[in-house]
Amino acid sequence: MSLHYLLRLTGKWLDGTGSCSDIVISSRVRLARNLEGFPFPERADRRQLREIIQRVTQAVKNVPYLQGAVILHLNKLSRLDREVLMERHLISYEHATGEGDKAVIITEQETVSIMINEEDHIRLQCLQSGLELKRAFEVTNSIDNVLAEQLIYSFSPRYGFLTACPTNVGTGMRTSILIHMPGLVLTHKIQKLLQTVSRIGLFIRGLYGEGSDVMGNLFQISNQVTLGQSEIEIINNMEKVARQVVIYEQSAREDLMKNNRELVEDKVWRAYSLLRSARVINSEETLELLSAIRLGINLNIIKYIDIRTLNEILLLTQPAHLQMIAGKQLEASVRDIRRAEFIRKKLK
Amino acid sequence: MSLHYLLRLTGKWLDGTGSCSDIVISSRVRLARNLEGFPFPERADRRQLREIIQRVTQAVKNVPYLQGAVILHLNKLSRLDREVLMERHLISYEHATGEGDKAVIITEQETVSIMINEEDHIRLQCLQSGLELKRAFEVTNSIDNVLAEQLIYSFSPRYGFLTACPTNVGTGMRTSILIHMPGLVLTHKIQKLLQTVSRIGLFIRGLYGEGSDVMGNLFQISNQVTLGQSEIEIINNMEKVARQVVIYEQSAREDLMKNNRELVEDKVWRAYSLLRSARVINSEETLELLSAIRLGINLNIIKYIDIRTLNEILLLTQPAHLQMIAGKQLEASVRDIRRAEFIRKKLK
Repeated sequence: MSLHYLLRLTGKWLDGTGSCSDIVISSRVRLARNLEGFPFPERADRRQLREIIQRVTQAVKNVPYLQGAVILHLNKLSRLDREVLMERHLISYEHATGEGDKAVIITEQETVSIMINEEDHIRLQCLQSGLELKRAFEVTNSIDNVLAEQLIYSFSPRYGFLTACPTNVGTGMRTSILIHMPGLVLTHKIQKLLQTVSRIGLFIRGLYGEGSDVMGNLFQISNQVTLGQSEIEIINNMEKVARQVVIYEQSAREDLMKNNRELVEDKVWRAYSLLRSARVINSEETLELLSAIRLGINLNIIKYIDIRTLNEILLLTQPAHLQMIAGKQLEASVRDIRRAEFIRKKLK
Repeated sequence: MSLHYLLRLTGKWLDGTGSCSDIVISSRVRLARNLEGFPFPERADRRQLREIIQRVTQAVKNVPYLQGAVILHLNKLSRLDREVLMERHLISYEHATGEGDKAVIITEQETVSIMINEEDHIRLQCLQSGLELKRAFEVTNSIDNVLAEQLIYSFSPRYGFLTACPTNVGTGMRTSILIHMPGLVLTHKIQKLLQTVSRIGLFIRGLYGEGSDVMGNLFQISNQVTLGQSEIEIINNMEKVARQVVIYEQSAREDLMKNNRELVEDKVWRAYSLLRSARVINSEETLELLSAIRLGINLNIIKYIDIRTLNEILLLTQPAHLQMIAGKQLEASVRDIRRAEFIRKKLK
């Protein structure tokens, strides 16, 4: 299975299903693992990096869940292909841009990806649509169990799994959800929520990058602590917080519809018709408008678009994807035109 | 003929016809006259003001052009009715809001209005669609000639017609055109044009108010000098400048279509779909969006709306008009909803 076959589809985690999927876009669980007897990738030489890739890919062959998965060697991919993988959340920025022997294993529906030789030897992640942290954990855990039978992990009885960065030591697990909170943003309650969530030991930020502005009312909540709690405790805690946040957001949306119905409808219909009519549009604006339409669908204002279509637009109008679709490099100004064309076609 | 009958229509000067009507919205000629033997309205007493109204309305009856015109006594009108007249450019802000005995005479198609007891005893104006200053002058001049046979004007052989404000002394004439210049605004050439026009003794400003921002890319060019030039010289000079400005604007539009076609089309289609979809919209945004659509019609980007419809929206979505249509006073926030409804219906 080739990269381009894989990428014609939208990952299953963007199909708009799962628990609380009107508010929670996706859930992600990631495990960091390292092989005993090898330096962390940063300090490993070429031969060692290749050996690590060799061992991990060999072990993967025996994991039932990963049958049919594609193995990609990043130094054999073009820059554009790597950017596409990054835009699909299958590899990290570091993995897409760094030097050295690196690989990624991706399942057909893009639910699971395993980065080899990122910061750690193994970064195993599972993405699920909606609030499905337990399901995501079950998948990573079952894969991890089979891998652990074949690979010897760096493990300390005292500290747990050893990782390149101390913040990952212990469970080596990070969980996160991508959550859409236009209600709390529009009712100006978002700041208070951000503070509350931070205070209980979770980390919350806007969708793109740590320093950037929050775009499209999309937030990521993730766990900070990997040490001193079991995986199940971490998952349960995140899940509990997520359900509470969902309730806040729902109540904010109800408030809006009760007290500012015209303004919400105005926002939704303007966004919908702008996306259907724009001839030039950048990513930020696309994200903003998609957010309003998503809200409109959730609130039953717009009835004839499904979340899957929105997610496809979200994914496929990113810079590298637009260039992959065009089959060539495109300047930003040309991309803005292609993006508008693509969206108009999708929403026709 | 009642006020409400009159106001169901859009004035003929907004029908989108006339010379250069893709760029010049309308032409206006106004004459200021005062009656010999009466103080200016500011200093006249009630009896004198009534006598002036009496004499002028009597004289008007003998003007063929004014047969069928309606005579409105402003102190008998509601505040809303006066605001409506002001929004239609039939009376001035001062005439709409000031105290005392005042009247206005309006022809059926709203081409001619005569304010009685504004700053001067008589303010006679003619509005024409497009660049039709000569036509507007002919109309005011022919009416003025008949009035002059029946009324004795304050006139000095040395200074010409005497007026309450010295800036009007002489011909008592002011001419202006309302001109739409999105091309020069979008290509950033407008500042240079404004300077050039000011330097040759004409006055140029944005559509609304002297201090306000230019809205909807609409500008008014008017003559400053009423003394030392004949009426025909003033008209010819304005006409010459206006034709030059029209050529600049046309050339800016051609530049835009050659070098930034996508951006222009983007602006036009966004404006069109926003007006068709907004649920809440204020006057300023309406004006901006109408400007883009007007440009789109002129450039053949949008083919299925006519200028008359745009002008109707421009006129009828003003605050007082919206309230007149609703038959009651409306708060600004409610007007914004009604305005959006009205526009959606018009553009359906």
